Amino acid sequence: MKEQMTPLEEIRHSSSHVLATAVLRLFPDAKLDIGPPTDTGFYYDFDLDHKFTADDLEKIEAEMKKVIKENQRFERIEVSREEAVKMIKEIGQETYKLGRLDDIPEGDQVSFYRNGEFLDLCAGSHVNYTKKIKAFKLLSIAGAYHRGDEKNKQLQRIYGTAFASKDELETYLNQLEESRKRDHRRVGKDMGLFHIDDAVGQGLILWKPKGAIVRQELQDFISEQLIKQEYSQVFTPHIGKLGLYKTSGHFPYYQESQFPPLIERDSLADLAEEGATCSTLTNNLETGDIEGYLLKPMNCPMHIKIFASEPHSYRDLPIRLAEFGTVYRWEQSGELNGMTRVRGFTQDDAHLFCTEEQLQDEIQGCLDLVKIVFGTLGMEDYSVRVSLRDPNSDKYVGDPANWDKAEAAIREAVKTLGVPFVEEEGEAAFYGPKIDFVVKDVIGREWQLGTVQVDYNLPVRFDISYTGSDNKPHRPVMVHRAPFGSMERFCGLLIEHFGGDFPTWLAPEQVRVLPISDKVRDYAESLVSQLKANGVRATGDFNSDKLGAKIRNAELDKVPNTLIVGEREAEEGKVSVRSRFHDGKPTMLFEEFETQVLQLINERTLQIKK
Amino acid sequence: MKEQMTPLEEIRHSSSHVLATAVLRLFPDAKLDIGPPTDTGFYYDFDLDHKFTADDLEKIEAEMKKVIKENQRFERIEVSREEAVKMIKEIGQETYKLGRLDDIPEGDQVSFYRNGEFLDLCAGSHVNYTKKIKAFKLLSIAGAYHRGDEKNKQLQRIYGTAFASKDELETYLNQLEESRKRDHRRVGKDMGLFHIDDAVGQGLILWKPKGAIVRQELQDFISEQLIKQEYSQVFTPHIGKLGLYKTSGHFPYYQESQFPPLIERDSLADLAEEGATCSTLTNNLETGDIEGYLLKPMNCPMHIKIFASEPHSYRDLPIRLAEFGTVYRWEQSGELNGMTRVRGFTQDDAHLFCTEEQLQDEIQGCLDLVKIVFGTLGMEDYSVRVSLRDPNSDKYVGDPANWDKAEAAIREAVKTLGVPFVEEEGEAAFYGPKIDFVVKDVIGREWQLGTVQVDYNLPVRFDISYTGSDNKPHRPVMVHRAPFGSMERFCGLLIEHFGGDFPTWLAPEQVRVLPISDKVRDYAESLVSQLKANGVRATGDFNSDKLGAKIRNAELDKVPNTLIVGEREAEEGKVSVRSRFHDGKPTMLFEEFETQVLQLINERTLQIKK
Repeated sequence: MKEQMTPLEEIRHSSSHVLATAVLRLFPDAKLDIGPPTDTGFYYDFDLDHKFTADDLEKIEAEMKKVIKENQRFERIEVSREEAVKMIKEIGQETYKLGRLDDIPEGDQVSFYRNGEFLDLCAGSHVNYTKKIKAFKLLSIAGAYHRGDEKNKQLQRIYGTAFASKDELETYLNQLEESRKRDHRRVGKDMGLFHIDDAVGQGLILWKPKGAIVRQELQDFISEQLIKQEYSQVFTPHIGKLGLYKTSGHFPYYQESQFPPLIERDSLADLAEEGATCSTLTNNLETGDIEGYLLKPMNCPMHIKIFASEPHSYRDLPIRLAEFGTVYRWEQSGELNGMTRVRGFTQDDAHLFCTEEQLQDEIQGCLDLVKIVFGTLGMEDYSVRVSLRDPNSDKYVGDPANWDKAEAAIREAVKTLGVPFVEEEGEAAFYGPKIDFVVKDVIGREWQLGTVQVDYNLPVRFDISYTGSDNKPHRPVMVHRAPFGSMERFCGLLIEHFGGDFPTWLAPEQVRVLPISDKVRDYAESLVSQLKANGVRATGDFNSDKLGAKIRNAELDKVPNTLIVGEREAEEGKVSVRSRFHDGKPTMLFEEFETQVLQLINERTLQIKK
Repeated sequence: MKEQMTPLEEIRHSSSHVLATAVLRLFPDAKLDIGPPTDTGFYYDFDLDHKFTADDLEKIEAEMKKVIKENQRFERIEVSREEAVKMIKEIGQETYKLGRLDDIPEGDQVSFYRNGEFLDLCAGSHVNYTKKIKAFKLLSIAGAYHRGDEKNKQLQRIYGTAFASKDELETYLNQLEESRKRDHRRVGKDMGLFHIDDAVGQGLILWKPKGAIVRQELQDFISEQLIKQEYSQVFTPHIGKLGLYKTSGHFPYYQESQFPPLIERDSLADLAEEGATCSTLTNNLETGDIEGYLLKPMNCPMHIKIFASEPHSYRDLPIRLAEFGTVYRWEQSGELNGMTRVRGFTQDDAHLFCTEEQLQDEIQGCLDLVKIVFGTLGMEDYSVRVSLRDPNSDKYVGDPANWDKAEAAIREAVKTLGVPFVEEEGEAAFYGPKIDFVVKDVIGREWQLGTVQVDYNLPVRFDISYTGSDNKPHRPVMVHRAPFGSMERFCGLLIEHFGGDFPTWLAPEQVRVLPISDKVRDYAESLVSQLKANGVRATGDFNSDKLGAKIRNAELDKVPNTLIVGEREAEEGKVSVRSRFHDGKPTMLFEEFETQVLQLINERTLQIKK
């Protein structure tokens, strides 16, 4: 925090000091850790036996307003390290602040900031007076480990935000409220889309019936495109021998980001017989000197084994092996978040095996697919990052001439998307250049999705080849591509993008028929049957509730189309149609509605609720 | 083997002694283990440095014929244990026979059988003279561990068969040859359906593109039926915490039949820190005193967690959760066999949660599905086994009155299938009665498939409930059902059932167009495109091969429909159609063929190659 902060950062940084000032007035026993500005506001971490409540937040906010009204001056005090230690002890904040003092690099100036009675070890910078804070709001309380380490004590973090003006604050709070309403964890629970169960394991998604429909519809949609693009689907197991991952280079490296291996019983029994200790076992795991299986962290070794299971001629290429393959990776529990940061996820994965000459067309094909899927889902606002090699480095595998061609191919292909893209030299992996996608959702938030990655390395490690027209063995190029990343993350994004209001083709329940009274029950039931017979996911609400309650329930369940039928509709074979996506409740012949809804489904028509 | 054998068993048993007689004449160093009759023939296990070859088999067979011609008499000799030891030593067969002698229960008569110069510890019984063996054949050599234990020495097992008459032997050998031709391991490899790779792991199936098509078509077919029956699809992870399986009762019990658990890193680190040995770890695994994850051996705990993730009223029931869920179980490597005995398999699984009153309908629904699927696949020849409780035992969980109702419900439902069924009292699991299916394939072999199993236990263990109409909590009944067992086993069976000649709707490649010359290439290509556009899996053979070679290739690839097109066909918009399923090569308008083939696909028409 040695660099000068922007004016907005200064407002937020000062807000965090004002927050701490207020907390100490109300809770003098609080021990302070740190309180920086963030991209969207500020926070301060407190250690206190009392657990902050929502009521406390209000009181603290009121006290902060007082502090601001007092118009305290922010004053910088530069001191020696010895003086700093003394000052920290004087204010009784040695628990965390002495450690923070130690963090300041030798030779850097140590400084404090004072406002009113509050004094804090702080590099700055700040606004001049507390009255410069014109628009702030405390938002939430969360647990946060000291220094982000689970082994340390969990502190109480108070989050807030601040802006230069009340208008800006209000806009932000509205957006936040909108995000909250769309939060896939909340919507997913309310709509019964998915469930995470501690007994099963954190970060492991149980797709409930309605969520499974959304996923299956998306998979069917993507699969249809893959068939058009002449991909071949495969199925592979979820574990593989450790030796497979030694060949691929995933084991014993990268163990931190993998689930622990399944240690073969014989291997463990041998160690036990030798009288080995668990430390030896741990050590063997680190060096890879053990037999067993790994829960697959990626599908590529399996797909390579399928490629290698029979000889190939250049005439067979390109071979495109696709799988909705579920892989498992270890994320720290603090990093987990609903469906978007998980420990098990189903990649929309494929591996392309092709010749150097075919690479450009293959990359183009991947991007064509992205364009179709994003277009269908109304995610036109996305950008692309192209990671290229550092031409001055020799860390890359593969022929530089081929890299040049591959990079040129990527550049050409990306241009056809007609969206902004950046090229980042030196950001490529050592084994090939790649393309990443970042998509903006309806309310403007950015999501990092999947990747198209050229690979010159694994074909060598697994020593795969095809017979060229010269009758000699040649090395194929591999492309890994999972453009949407994973079904879990992509569905999480879609839930937020649509706010749970899925277009009809994706909606778990597509049509609900609401009979006004029991007299039209038969008519309503016949409509439901007819819709179902045509493959529409339709239900009828035959509860004894009043129509108003039925409509409310259908709205709560975010059913895109509801058909209200009374005696008049029944006589005329009509329905009164309510759509989540537009106003008006036109009455039409049931057949007309059926044609419309089948069209929405079959053409996967985009519908977005405003 | 104390009971009197049947005449056929005596022939086979005596054949095995004749086999051993011949082997000792040719290989006097051979150490003998055992040589019993089996359901289909006989074998003898030998320990010998020399590895038997196919040539050896011929020589041994010739020597056996001599022994038979010598018309040696089988003579029973009853001796004391002490004499037996002496005799075994005299014939130099102490390596295995002394151990086999020890196996004879105290108090049982010890006996030997002699024929000519050959003497063998043997309980009998045998034919009188070797000439009674009128029709035998040696079949194969295989490795077999002494006493079936991988820790013991691997012996050489010679398999043979024998029948009362030459005709019966010939019929059997023909059937064997037919089985060999249909062997799913062979057909699966030839057709490129699946691959097992030692680097990935034994018993783990990699579904290659063509096999994946067959599996996906079957899944789509079953899914369609499930939608009609108002099942809900779910997706669940492939691992769960050990605690989940403690609740279900799968851990720490039944570890022998499971993959080893993934031991949580922290758990292992703690043990290492305490200086614990690997024996302690092994012990903790046995007692279940460890944290970690289990590769799921079954889907039920996950489905129960989905059921339990929201409250249910009696009005929500039945709830039917279906998943093509891949589970993992540890089979001994000697038990593994292609796709039919594997370590990872995808169950056509579902769990039904219902009230006692709904149980009969639910079981009926399961059987309706079985009937439809078996009918569509031409497997009309199947039988059913119903496992009931032993009414005199108190080992069963659940209310006896409910068991009575459940058993009656099963009996009623099974009757509607119109196939033979047996009831077996005392064969039910402690937690509920069940139904098993045994199907006969085209060449008359029986295959044990899946199950419909009532469960009164897991709902208690997981303490799940629904609110009844009395507003009080009630315990649902659970039904586990995977009627086809697993996609792996079922596809293995189907490969053999159809001998690789899948009906058009299931065939990986449905139509191949063979242009007679390059002049009609455009026409042939247009047919392929049109078929593909209609969702038909069609290809064209545009190689420069002669037509005969193209036809042969299409036959080798078992493509059900080939279209031969020459200039005349091109002019008239016609095709000459060859089908794998019937003779004749009718020439017809392409549109006519297209209609026919689409009908075969859409109606999932059964086609069986005679």
